[in-house]
This record gives sequence, C-alpha cells and structure tokens, in this order.
Amino acid sequence: MTVLEQERIQTQSTSKTFRVIGRRVPRPDGVDKVTGRAQYGADVKLSGMLYGKVLRSPHAHARIVSIDTREAEALPGVKAVITGKDFKPAEDRVERSGEGVVNYSYLSQNVMAQDKVLYHGHAVAAVAATNPHIAEEALARIKVEYEVLPPVLDVLEAMREDAPILLPNLRTRELGEPVSDRPTNIASHEQYARGDVERGFAEADVIVEREFRTSTVHQGYIEPQNATALWNADGFITVWTSTQAAWDERRELSEILHVPISNIRVIPMEIGGGFGGKLNVYLEPLAALLSLKAGHRPVKMWMQRDEVLKATGPTSASVIRVKVGARRDGVITAAQAWLAYEAGAFPGSPVGAGMGVIFAPYRLENLLIDGYDVVVNKPAAKPYRAPGGTNAAFASETVVDELAEKLGMDPIAFRRINAAKEGDRRADGPVYGRIGYIETLDAIANHPHYRSPLPAPSAPWCRVGRGVASGFWFNWDGKSSASAIVNPDGTVSYLEGSTDIGGTRASLAMQLAETLGIDYTDVRPMVGDTQTVGYNDATGGSRTTYGSGIAAYHLGKAIIRAMKERAARLWDVPAEDVDVDGDTYCYGERCITFKALCAKLEETGGPLSVSVSVDTHGAIPALATHVVDVEVDIETGKVSILRYTAAQDVGRAIHPDYVEGQIHGGVAQGIGWALNEEYVYDADGHLLNASLLDYRMPTALDLPMIETVLVEVPNPNHPFGVKGVGEVPIVPPAAAIANAIYRAIGVRMTTLPMKPSAILKALGTIP
Amino acid sequence: MTVLEQERIQTQSTSKTFRVIGRRVPRPDGVDKVTGRAQYGADVKLSGMLYGKVLRSPHAHARIVSIDTREAEALPGVKAVITGKDFKPAEDRVERSGEGVVNYSYLSQNVMAQDKVLYHGHAVAAVAATNPHIAEEALARIKVEYEVLPPVLDVLEAMREDAPILLPNLRTRELGEPVSDRPTNIASHEQYARGDVERGFAEADVIVEREFRTSTVHQGYIEPQNATALWNADGFITVWTSTQAAWDERRELSEILHVPISNIRVIPMEIGGGFGGKLNVYLEPLAALLSLKAGHRPVKMWMQRDEVLKATGPTSASVIRVKVGARRDGVITAAQAWLAYEAGAFPGSPVGAGMGVIFAPYRLENLLIDGYDVVVNKPAAKPYRAPGGTNAAFASETVVDELAEKLGMDPIAFRRINAAKEGDRRADGPVYGRIGYIETLDAIANHPHYRSPLPAPSAPWCRVGRGVASGFWFNWDGKSSASAIVNPDGTVSYLEGSTDIGGTRASLAMQLAETLGIDYTDVRPMVGDTQTVGYNDATGGSRTTYGSGIAAYHLGKAIIRAMKERAARLWDVPAEDVDVDGDTYCYGERCITFKALCAKLEETGGPLSVSVSVDTHGAIPALATHVVDVEVDIETGKVSILRYTAAQDVGRAIHPDYVEGQIHGGVAQGIGWALNEEYVYDADGHLLNASLLDYRMPTALDLPMIETVLVEVPNPNHPFGVKGVGEVPIVPPAAAIANAIYRAIGVRMTTLPMKPSAILKALGTIP
Repeated sequence: MTVLEQERIQTQSTSKTFRVIGRRVPRPDGVDKVTGRAQYGADVKLSGMLYGKVLRSPHAHARIVSIDTREAEALPGVKAVITGKDFKPAEDRVERSGEGVVNYSYLSQNVMAQDKVLYHGHAVAAVAATNPHIAEEALARIKVEYEVLPPVLDVLEAMREDAPILLPNLRTRELGEPVSDRPTNIASHEQYARGDVERGFAEADVIVEREFRTSTVHQGYIEPQNATALWNADGFITVWTSTQAAWDERRELSEILHVPISNIRVIPMEIGGGFGGKLNVYLEPLAALLSLKAGHRPVKMWMQRDEVLKATGPTSASVIRVKVGARRDGVITAAQAWLAYEAGAFPGSPVGAGMGVIFAPYRLENLLIDGYDVVVNKPAAKPYRAPGGTNAAFASETVVDELAEKLGMDPIAFRRINAAKEGDRRADGPVYGRIGYIETLDAIANHPHYRSPLPAPSAPWCRVGRGVASGFWFNWDGKSSASAIVNPDGTVSYLEGSTDIGGTRASLAMQLAETLGIDYTDVRPMVGDTQTVGYNDATGGSRTTYGSGIAAYHLGKAIIRAMKERAARLWDVPAEDVDVDGDTYCYGERCITFKALCAKLEETGGPLSVSVSVDTHGAIPALATHVVDVEVDIETGKVSILRYTAAQDVGRAIHPDYVEGQIHGGVAQGIGWALNEEYVYDADGHLLNASLLDYRMPTALDLPMIETVLVEVPNPNHPFGVKGVGEVPIVPPAAAIANAIYRAIGVRMTTLPMKPSAILKALGTIP
Repeated sequence: MTVLEQERIQTQSTSKTFRVIGRRVPRPDGVDKVTGRAQYGADVKLSGMLYGKVLRSPHAHARIVSIDTREAEALPGVKAVITGKDFKPAEDRVERSGEGVVNYSYLSQNVMAQDKVLYHGHAVAAVAATNPHIAEEALARIKVEYEVLPPVLDVLEAMREDAPILLPNLRTRELGEPVSDRPTNIASHEQYARGDVERGFAEADVIVEREFRTSTVHQGYIEPQNATALWNADGFITVWTSTQAAWDERRELSEILHVPISNIRVIPMEIGGGFGGKLNVYLEPLAALLSLKAGHRPVKMWMQRDEVLKATGPTSASVIRVKVGARRDGVITAAQAWLAYEAGAFPGSPVGAGMGVIFAPYRLENLLIDGYDVVVNKPAAKPYRAPGGTNAAFASETVVDELAEKLGMDPIAFRRINAAKEGDRRADGPVYGRIGYIETLDAIANHPHYRSPLPAPSAPWCRVGRGVASGFWFNWDGKSSASAIVNPDGTVSYLEGSTDIGGTRASLAMQLAETLGIDYTDVRPMVGDTQTVGYNDATGGSRTTYGSGIAAYHLGKAIIRAMKERAARLWDVPAEDVDVDGDTYCYGERCITFKALCAKLEETGGPLSVSVSVDTHGAIPALATHVVDVEVDIETGKVSILRYTAAQDVGRAIHPDYVEGQIHGGVAQGIGWALNEEYVYDADGHLLNASLLDYRMPTALDLPMIETVLVEVPNPNHPFGVKGVGEVPIVPPAAAIANAIYRAIGVRMTTLPMKPSAILKALGTIP
C-alpha cells in the first residue's frame, strides 16, 4: 500500500508558526505497545487473586423465579457467588456521564439482573474461584428457574400499545406534558421545532420524503471489558480496569455499591479501544462485590468475545423518517424528521444526539424534529463514536443528495447554498461559533478526487458511482486536571488524567511543550488515576486534546509564572519585570533558558510542582464532508470502496498523524456500519452472530487508503485553536456510500447495512 | 505487658487547642499491613519477569584478576550476566544524599566491584535467569580469579602509614591544607575549634580523659533490600524498590547508569524498615543493567539476610578519645575530642555528625574536636539513625557522668549547669533556636522513675545501678512536595512523596486536616513516586513530619485560598471578603462548610487540584535525656534493663502514638547497640555472624516497657511546632546504660557492646 501525502489546508489565521505543534513527533507509548510491555487490564496480577465469571441469561425476556447457588458454592475452589440479591438498589437518578447520561438504578440492574432478565446475555450471577476453570464449572452448577416472557426486538413494535412491556414502572417522559400512567416502552419523546414546517413545505418546489432503518452495531474494540477489584478490609476499593472514564466509573461504583467516592480508587490501565463502549461499568461492581464476599481477596474478571457482543452496549438500531423541501434555487425551505431509537433494555439511546445531528450542517428556518427513546429486548445501548449521528446523517444526507439530484444541482454546490456558518443557530439551540463547514465543502470540491472522472468498472457486471455526504458532531467541553513536576535536568514530568486512547499523551505533551517553549521530548507524559491526579471528565465527546489541552496550557502558564519568580530570585529583581520569550527568561540583558533555570531550582526556592484544574466552555463543533467512489457487483451485490477522501475542519491539528488516524478509524468504522455490521437475532431474541467471525467488521483488505484533508479553521476559544476531531469522521460514511451506490445502480438504499443481499433485493434480483 | 500511661509535658505556648493534632487517630495503612495486603517490593510481579542474583567476594581484600562468565551464560534459563566491566565509571563527585553525602564513583564501585574487592561480600557479578534457582546455579559457574591482599579491619591500624591501602588514589582531605600525595586510608580530617582548650583545661579543677571503642553495628531492618527494574526498549527505566529516598535513588541511578533522571521512575514500595540503610542503591542498578542486557525484561532481585549483613551499609565502628574539664562549681571549662570512624570500603563515615553531636548539649567556651574518616575492609558504612551520634554520646556522656561523680554532683544537676539553650552556639557553627534541652533534664529530674529508689537486686549475685545520659540530633530541613485533589464528597485525596516509615501518612494527613479544619478521616493520604508527585527529599534526618508537614500546611492554605474563591463565586462577592474559621467559609451572615462547598465545586469553576513544593529552613534540633535502671549479673556478666524512661523535646507531638513509637524504637536499638550487637570478623576479614541468630538484636523479651515523656517546646518555625523526633532516641542509651552499669558495679565501660564477656573482663573475672 502506498502511503499518500495527506493534505492540510490552513486558513490565514493559522499561519502562526509553532515550535512543536503540527509536527509528527514519536508517540511516548509507542515502544511499550509494540514490545508488548504496555500494561493492560489483562496484565494485572495480584497476590491471592481470584478469577470471576458471569452467568448470563439464555433468554431475551424472562422473569427470574429462583436462583439456587448452593451447588456452586459447595464446589472446592469457589470463594464467592453473587446474584442480584447482593445488590442494594441504586438511586433512580440521572447524571451526566461520559458522552451521555446515566441512571444509576438502571445501570445497577444492567450490571446484574434483579427480578427480570431483559436481553440474551443479561448477567444473573457471578462466581469467584481460585482459577477461571473452577469459576466456569461453578457457573454450570447454578440453577436458575426462569418464567420466559415474549420479547420485543424492533423499535416500531415496541412502541405499539400492545407490545410486551420491559420495565413495568417506565412511563413516557413527554416534553412539558404530565407523565402518563400507562406502562410503555417509550422512555421519552422530545421535540425540536423552529419556524413553520407546513409553510416551508408549501414554499418548496421539490420535496423528498423517505423512511430509513439502521441495525444494531457494536463499537468493536478489540480488547474485551475487564476489571480487577480489591475491596479491602478497611473499606477502600481499588479497581484496575480498561476504561475511558475513571472518574465516572468511580461515581458509578459509588452509587451501585453504596460506598463514598473517596473510598474508591479507579486505576485506568492501557486501553485496547473504547469508542464510547467503555464509559460505564460492567464487570467492575461484580468484581468488587465478589472481592468483598470472598473475604477481601482481589478478583479479576474479563469478558469473552461473545459476552462483549451480547452484553455490553452496542449502539441503537433506529427507524428515521425524513422530509425535506427546497426551492428551485437550491434553498431548503423546511426539514422534518421523526427518529425512533432503540435504547436496548434500559432507557438511554442517543436519539437526542441524533436529533441534533440530523440537519446540523444546514441553516434552516423551518424545522420539526421528533425523537423517541424506546426500550427493546437487546443489550442496553451505550455511546458509540458520535452516538446516534451516523444513523441520523444516513437518513438526512441521503435525502439531501436526492434533493440536489432532483434540482439538477451538484451535491456540494447544493450543500454550499444551505451551509451553516458562524452565527447560525443549531436545531438543538446553541449558535455556531467559528465552524469550518463551508471550508470542508470547498476542500472536497477542489480535491483531485472530486475533480477526477470516475474510474471504469473492473468488470462488465460492475457499476461505479461517487457519493458525497457531510456530517456534524457537537464536541464536548468538560473538565480536566493535570499536574507537572519540573525536574532539575530541564524536563517536565507531566501527569494527566485522560485515558489515552487516540494519542493524547502525545497531543497534550505537545501543547505543554509549546506553551513552555521547550522540546517535546523534554515533556514526559503519564496517565494518572483517580487518586494521583485531579478530576478529569471522560475521554469521550472528542474532548481530550481540546479540553485536557487547555489544562496543559494553563499548567504551562503556571509553570512559567513560577519560573519567572525563580529567575527573579536568582537575579534579585522583581518577578513582574522578568520577560519570557519561548524558553528564555530575561531581565534586561540578563537571560537564562528554561533548562538552565531548572538547574537553578535548588538555589531559588527548591523543587517546583504545579497542579491545575479547568472547566472548559469553548468547544466548537466538528464538521466534515466526505466523498467516496464505490463499485457495486450487481451479480453478487458486493460493494467495494474504491477511493475515499475525508475533509474535516480540525481546528488545529496538534499531531497530524493522530488526527489522520482518527479520520481513518472513524471512516473505517463507518464503512463497516454501512456495508456489513449488524446484530442478527432470531425471533426469540437470541443473538446469532456473537463472534467476530460472524459479526463482520472490515479488515484492512476491505479498505482503500483513506485520504484526508485537514482543514484548519482554528477555534478562537482554545489557545492553539483545537477542535475535537475524533467522532465526526464516522458520521458521513454511510450516507456517502449510499449516495455513491445510488449513482452506481440507480437505487436509493434506505437500510443499513447495505450488505450484498440488501443490494440484490434493492435491485430486484432476489425477493 | 502493661501499657503504661505515657506522660506529656506541654509548655505554656502549646496550650492552643487543636482539632486533629495531638490525637491518637487510626493509621491509614494499618489494615493493609495487618491483613498482608500492603504491597512491598517482594510483591512485585511483572509479565516475563526474570530473577537476579549476585555473586559476592569471599575475600575481604583482593584484586580481581579475571572473571569468566561463559559457563554461566551457557546455562539454559540464564538471560544476562553482568560484571564490573558492564559499568561505565561514574563521576568522582560528591553530592548531598539523604542524611549524608554520596560520591557517585565510590557508590558505583560499591554496587559492583571493579578491579578490586574491598570487603567480604562485595558484589563481583550478577545473573538474571528465568527463576531464582537457575540464577543461583549460574553464580556457581562464574569463575573469578582473585589475587588476595592483606585486609585492614581496624580504624587505628588503617591509619598507620604502613597499613594495606584500599583505594590507591585516595588522598587525605585536610581542612584548608593542600592535598597530600601519599596514598592513605584516611579520607578526611576535619576539626571544630573554639576558644582555647589549653587555657580551659588549666582552669579546670577536675579533668576526665578516656578512650572509647565501638563496634560495627547494622540497622537491622527486617525487610531485606530488594529491587525490580525494567529498562524499557524506549530507554526509560522503572524501578520498584524498598527505599527511604526515591529521588536520591533516581539521581544515583542516573549517575551510575548514565541515563537522565527524567528517564528514570522510582516507585517506592511499602518499606519494612530502613533507619538510614535504605537511602542508597544496591540492587537497583544491577537489576536495571540486567534488564537491559536481558533484552528489556523486568528483573527482580532481593537479598538474603547474610547479604544484607555482609554487603549493605552498617554504621561505623569507632575509636573516640574525650577529655573534659570542669570547675568545682560545675562549669565545664574545656572539652576536647578525637574521633576516628571506620568508613568501611569507601569514604563516608558519619564522623562529621559525631563531631557535631559529641558536646552538643553543652554551652562550651573552649572546645577542640578532631574527626577522621578512615577506610577499612568492611562494607561501606551508611547512615543509621542519628548516624555517628550514639558512638559520640557514649564517649562524651560517660565522661560527663564521671565528672559529675568526681564533683559530687547529681548528674542531672551537673548537666543543667552547663546545658545549652536558645542563642548558644553549637560546635559545628549554628546558633541554637528554641531547643528544649533543659526541659528534658527537668522532666527526668521530676519523673517518678528518677525520684524512686533503686529496686533491690533480684539475687545476691546481682547488682543494680541507675544511669543518666543526654543526646542531641541536628534534625534536617530539606524539600518536600505534595498534591491534593478536593473531592465533591468533601474529602481530600492527598498525595505525598515521603516514604512512610514511621507513620507519616497519618502525621501529614493530620496536619492537612488541621489546616483545613476538617476531620482526619476526610483526608485520604497516599505515597506517590518520582513521576506522580513533586520532588521530596529522603525520609531521613527526622525531617518528614516536620518538612513534609510544612508542605501539607501550605497545601492546605492553597486549598483554602481556592475554596474562598469558590465561595466568592457562589455568592458573587469578592474572594478577599470571604472569611474562614475552621471548616466554615463566611461572607457576612452567609456561611458554608468545607464539605458543602465541595459539593458546589461543579458549579463554581469545576474540579480543584493543588500542588505545592517547599524548601524548609526552620528545623530545630532534638534533645533528650534518658534514665535507665540496670541489673548486672556479676556471675554471667549479663546486663538486664529494669526500667527505662526517655524524656525528649518533641516540639509538638502530632500523633503521640507514633512519637512514642519512635522513642521506643530508638531506645530499643540503642539498647541492642549497647549490650549485644556487633560485627564479628576473623583475622582475614570474613564476617562470622551474618545471620540474625548470631547478630543478636534485642527482642521484646530483652526489653522493659519503655516509658516516655513527650516534652513539647514548640518549634516557632513550624506552623504546628513540629520538631524531628525519630533519631535522637538512639543517641543516649549506650551512655545511659554504661553509666548505670558503673553505678552497679563500679567499673567504667569504654567499649561497645557491653556484652557479658566484656563485663566479666571489666570485673576482672576473665582475662
């Protein structure tokens, strides 16, 4: 494979030169990861450690009549068995957590079923034993009597009045309405409205209206969930785990286990992928309770792949109806959407985010968006990279493409007419800051890919097409803390608290080095835990390089203030008269470098260590435009990706490799979601493809080299202009590919995945 | 055993009431330690870990002709073998380290012999293998050819011009003199002089002059030295070790291995005793080099007990001559001392400290003190609790007792006449601050123990006596850093960097809680490492509760400043108008507690984390007076301790249990040193008693309950009045016991240990 020279487009205001930022420096965790030295949850080994396993429901919907654990407990080597009865109910209270919200009562019931199981794979009991084999054997000796109930597996069916009810106490929360007293599977109905859509549609020359369906898909991180917990005899709990959100997990453990947060230390290990799926606890509370019950011995647990797919949170299947009207001059006059997202077993689908994403790239005077969060007998949905966004954009961007086609306009030109820019108001309320959406449209319009003719089909039974789609993601602010130690050898030990998933040790160390005017290699980053570094919000919401970057900047500024004082003390002059330029501190003619000043710490007041915490409020959304060329084999229905180019407003690419990596990863996942990935259930709600052989994620062989254009429209609210980059790349691919397929075969695809059988059905080749 | 009610004497200025300080609160590490859950170096387990063992010299003095490691390397399972040739020479440079100084060149040669071995047990090679048995087996296959040289084992013999020379390049460093060009074993000669001792002795009515000898003794910590090191493929080294001084060890590793300090992370594990013996590296550089040579696999090493005794640093044997004269009215007119301390194989005995200690309790107009640091073929001496002090006080306090006796004065009354107080100048230069020496004399004079008659002997062949002695220790200032995270539940996670040996997690958390006006249990202390918390000097020099306590205080003040800002933001008032009283923040009538304000962090600016570093300059020396009753069995020579009372100026007892514990421990060690402990060598320099069966430390059965009087004369330079308490308790015991023995049997003992054979010799019972 040829590595293409990737493009970067910098707006005028980015022309400032940096010392470190924008360079493709080596990653600090690289050697550890390629030599197998990095410590993941699987590497945790503690004295007297036990091994925990989970018994899971074989039914999608059933009442637990009884659980008899006596035989399991009697098995030599078994040290503890827990069931739902070991859990004291958690509060029915909703708090922000990672990218979404969490209801602690539901979270607790998801971690271990109480009186009902709500999906195939729902945990019903857990065992800790001296080795994993004994624990497995003990699971087989637990007798659970179930009263099997009919499951409901489809969002529209679940919304029917006569549907089987999952949660007897669930009532629809309607915006501004009193809560109904009727049991329901509809957890909430929310609405965004602006202007008058009826009038808008009346003004339209062309209207397109379609219904779309998307399947349940999983984040597909390679490292399964794992957790080792020690509930110590002094009441303190330590948990080593693979997580994106150590502080959120601490709070969740506190709520589920009824232990104060400050009695819980969560140590985030290296993480083998999360994508939103590791923001919440699964095994952690089980391991902790088993540890307690086993007499304060550490308990290690990890999931098998089938458990990951069955019982952790995939993202929602959905049904989305979109209607958009436009005038002949290309101006959209009205846009309406109806979204119903499957929450899985407990309320909490990302339908709200889908509502925000669905028309976000466009300036709209008349809009009406209704969203429904609906429980079904599938695992509880959890965030997945731009949660809810891909579903929404698949629907809206297909309709936008069709509108452009019907108006005889270039799809980019049509989008450009309606494109949102700074000062426009989003459907969900906020006014846009300095976004770079139009710049991404122009970047694609001017890109050699878009300007080149389509390649010829590779065989007579193949058709080629090119599709375009745009995408939006909110980008989260959040809170970050960090600490630094200034070493006498001129280096800075840097302790940050954001789990490093996508290279943030590098991107944060770079921002600290830039602030201090020192070399990148003189900053030594390390990820702390809930006990060693101040509070950090989750690595999620595309916030880390942005928000923890602001913390790094303020940390640098605090170090500079302190170093000015040290220089002042060295020269016996007022600190406010010491000037700093890059790494050089001067008082008149007298100058000293940062490194030289570090060597003088001893004589100017001793060691220097600094901590900062920040609450950030200046994130700016990410927008992207993608173009894809596909080839459709009309005999087999297989879709091949021939060429893929993604232009994205990244604000400022701190480390371009990683930014490109985020785009590559997001696009690759979007392609999988578009073409292959789906949860397949039988009528009784059994997941039939709970393995990576049957749940088909794309491999390198399925993908071309993804080309990127980093459009840098700096965020004026960030010292270096950073905008979150990690999530929006997954938003456009499904729509872009659907639009390309349409251009190839003349059929609008309205279901995901667009697998061969779906293509053949759409072509009428098979019924 | 009955636990006696311990006495505390508070001076007027200590009457201030505290919320937390002075209480006997539970220790935060208690449960972990009694349940075996605390993680010591022996508990470190890493993937792919190898086990390292050291080959040690069977000779006390020899030239290494050759080392053939081929057979060892060929043994299956052996992954690396190192010898002195794997070490690049370290710089011949002296820096402060822990309680003493360190010369990196000598330290490196001590860690692994180069061309010569200088003591029995000196490391000559090391092996890493897949298990410890293979490593042991490999040691047996290393062939070392030695040219054996005559050893010198006694300080006076080593000072002779014709003595065997250990270090051919060593030259005497004489104060103010050009360096001689003659090879020598005398590393340095220093002198303190004041007034005119000749004139002083001329003015004296009574003069006592004696020569004393003390033996080599070991700190006797129970946990042997251990270290696990990973020299990673990216050039970064991580070391898990039992140490008092993570940052000093980092610097030593840097110098020995020629790696920048910021590439080295030293993680201090829980420590099973140090007493000064774990301030410097032994196994750490070996484990690191083996790790490098074994292809970046972690290597774990630990010493056997015989290795600890043979090859780590005991404290110096010494010869001390003391001459003191006094007038009939009890005023000392002149004091002279000559001290020669064995440094062991490399320069660095604590003779300088001995010179400072020897007459420190007294106000002296005329003094002359000469000290010699002398190398001999024994392990390199390392600090041991008040290094050099016990030897010195044994000599001087015996002479002072004899002077009092000759003058017909009560030994306490005689000391009181000459007692140093605030404003007096010490022999080593500094002027005393607010010391409480006289208060300790008064405390003993008034104590029921001193006022009670001696008990009757338990048998006709037994004699009883009571002895008194005083002691001084400098107490070190040094540097400390700490960090804190304020949690929304009102607790504070507190990260300190001082190895907790004597309960400093508790004593520091108490000072932070006191500063914040919150409960002790709301501060959650934890010990960090060189990467997670700012620079901390060693836990040594009795500095931790004092110096890291100042850091805790400033950390608390920084939190209070930040919390005032949060309260101000909550009420929208100026921060400078918010008042704080205890845990309550008020603006006029509006008040909020610390805990309630913590719950408002989210809405007043987000999370809060704080770091501070301090360089302290207000330590005040510790002084103590001890009284002991002994019974001497004149048939066997055995000395039994009947009753022991120690009065000490502790400044302020933050946690009285721990302060008493320090006194108990120091006295117990002093009793061992006085009566039983010594290194026994044969004429060839082989250590004959390298086990705890033969190296006799006192057990609980050998000791009475030690009574303590905590005299609290607060240190005005410390926010809570703390003075270092850990070391001075070991200074008086040997002298106090010698004086008691004299009162029992009428013979002045001038050698340590005062073992049965020495008593019988002194009595003339045996030759």
